[in-house]
Amino acid sequence: MIIDCHGHYTTVPGALEGWRKSQIGSLDGSSPPPKRSALVISDDELRESVEKAQLRLQRERGTDLTLFSPRAMAMAHHIGTADTSLEWSRQCNDLIHRVCTLYPRNFAPVCQLPQSPGVPPANCIPELERCVKELGFVGCNLNPDPSGGHWKEPPLTDRWWYPLYEKMVELDVPAMVHVSASCNPCFHGTGAHYLNGDTTAFMQFLASDLFSDFPTLKFIIPHGGGAVPYHWGRYRGLAQDMKRPLLKDYLLKNVFFDTCVYHQAGIDLLLRVIPAENILFASEMVGAVRGVDPETGFYFDDTKRYIDGAPGLSADDRYKIYEGNARRVFSRLKLPA
Amino acid sequence: MIIDCHGHYTTVPGALEGWRKSQIGSLDGSSPPPKRSALVISDDELRESVEKAQLRLQRERGTDLTLFSPRAMAMAHHIGTADTSLEWSRQCNDLIHRVCTLYPRNFAPVCQLPQSPGVPPANCIPELERCVKELGFVGCNLNPDPSGGHWKEPPLTDRWWYPLYEKMVELDVPAMVHVSASCNPCFHGTGAHYLNGDTTAFMQFLASDLFSDFPTLKFIIPHGGGAVPYHWGRYRGLAQDMKRPLLKDYLLKNVFFDTCVYHQAGIDLLLRVIPAENILFASEMVGAVRGVDPETGFYFDDTKRYIDGAPGLSADDRYKIYEGNARRVFSRLKLPA
Repeated sequence: MIIDCHGHYTTVPGALEGWRKSQIGSLDGSSPPPKRSALVISDDELRESVEKAQLRLQRERGTDLTLFSPRAMAMAHHIGTADTSLEWSRQCNDLIHRVCTLYPRNFAPVCQLPQSPGVPPANCIPELERCVKELGFVGCNLNPDPSGGHWKEPPLTDRWWYPLYEKMVELDVPAMVHVSASCNPCFHGTGAHYLNGDTTAFMQFLASDLFSDFPTLKFIIPHGGGAVPYHWGRYRGLAQDMKRPLLKDYLLKNVFFDTCVYHQAGIDLLLRVIPAENILFASEMVGAVRGVDPETGFYFDDTKRYIDGAPGLSADDRYKIYEGNARRVFSRLKLPA
Repeated sequence: MIIDCHGHYTTVPGALEGWRKSQIGSLDGSSPPPKRSALVISDDELRESVEKAQLRLQRERGTDLTLFSPRAMAMAHHIGTADTSLEWSRQCNDLIHRVCTLYPRNFAPVCQLPQSPGVPPANCIPELERCVKELGFVGCNLNPDPSGGHWKEPPLTDRWWYPLYEKMVELDVPAMVHVSASCNPCFHGTGAHYLNGDTTAFMQFLASDLFSDFPTLKFIIPHGGGAVPYHWGRYRGLAQDMKRPLLKDYLLKNVFFDTCVYHQAGIDLLLRVIPAENILFASEMVGAVRGVDPETGFYFDDTKRYIDGAPGLSADDRYKIYEGNARRVFSRLKLPA
């Protein structure tokens, strides 16, 4: 079985965007916010939105199950208030739930959190509980920068975040650390802000005692860990200079990397420096990069080809990366053995 | 000959820090700013500061010449006004000039620019001209984020920066894109802000027509290019999705990467994906990571070992990385052939 731990619902029917526009349009008080019930999307529309995209690509590429979450770029926690974010998150999460209910063998749900700049993350707990307890979600996406490129929240290791972590631990759900759109013109979204968010979060974890306080808290750092595996020597050296434990004895109990790295050389590096126990297969499809690589003739984001093409990967390690680690990290995922 | 294109004067005598403290202490108006002449450091003190550090390491590691610039973390452009930054930059640059004059075979000077948040980069031109024309500097360090982790300036590709680029082109000096200290608690300096700055700048370049406007402008992106080579497939794919030219036909005429990547796997990846023409040897010593790697028994930042240990590097490519590219990019560097 091949589990893709990182897929977003980037092909959602247009009615959702219309609802969101109406919501954003209401923020100046010129119109009432749209009601939840104003969003009407049929099951057939949902089916069509994934049949031609994610499901087709699963079949073509030979992957089985995608951990499916709302479109990351559209979370846009910086827009409006906490209430804006909650209403928007509920709509997005409910659509994810519906797709996963329609295709329980192909998708498992991961939720967006109703974060909002300056609002304590504890505010996200009710929506997280609703998703996990009522709707069967198995994980969440946590935005380390709800300001959208201005980085105004405390680091992820600050006690500001602890109530949410307590709930994650209680529910036994991991978080993928995933920023959303950048509204800072310095940062291109998928080309800079995403990778910077990954790198930033890892270094926050490295410098902290977070996992002494939460020994069972689990984070996935997407996009192959940003800059981290490429600079693994730098991080080992910084940890040593800072009198921190060895990364493998500390961070790697709690921090995992996905395989959203879109060329063979990058995946080879990832597999060379990061233990197989800490790597989860992912493609981010349909996502950041949509084209075909002229150097290979295959989609850039067809990351399974790079794993399959990596030299010297043992069958045991392949199992961990494709399936075993995802079952372990997303422990609420109920699948046949 | 082995040229290290990235070394900072991190071992400067303590009197400089004292002068800087006095300068910062004066910012609240409680005392007058210190005079330039209040900084007194003897040639013997300068010699001692590098003999036991950079010069010893050059000898031990078998490198010849270091392109030497003020301590990047201490540039701290966010402190005080443009005048604060100018006075501080002059002091730092003058010390670099003195060290390079004492050891012309070991060091060549690269200057700090007196950037200041919100102040047009054109304001740096007089100090750049003084350094290049009067003191023989061969390059400069350009901070894409003088705010120190708040990223409030326009992207490097905005016309805001153009007057400085016009002067760089006229003087034929490259810039290393190098942030300084982070005063944003989200970003660890050497573990996040540095690499994020590199990644951010590259993506700004990718999305722009900057090098159509300045075909001879040259930038070095340090720290192995941040996350960029590890995600080279992502960048090739993003460029393609954005209808940009191939990276090798466009950006790689003007953008170069250094080798400050502190493990063999990272250097192997860099050499595998980036053309040798675009890689300049560097170690950042004495710098970000100061310890010995217990896995190898050698200093993490002894990057020459990784280049020497890279499989399949041709003699021609080795020459380019160790010497030829530095001579070409830092074209004002006057060296025996």
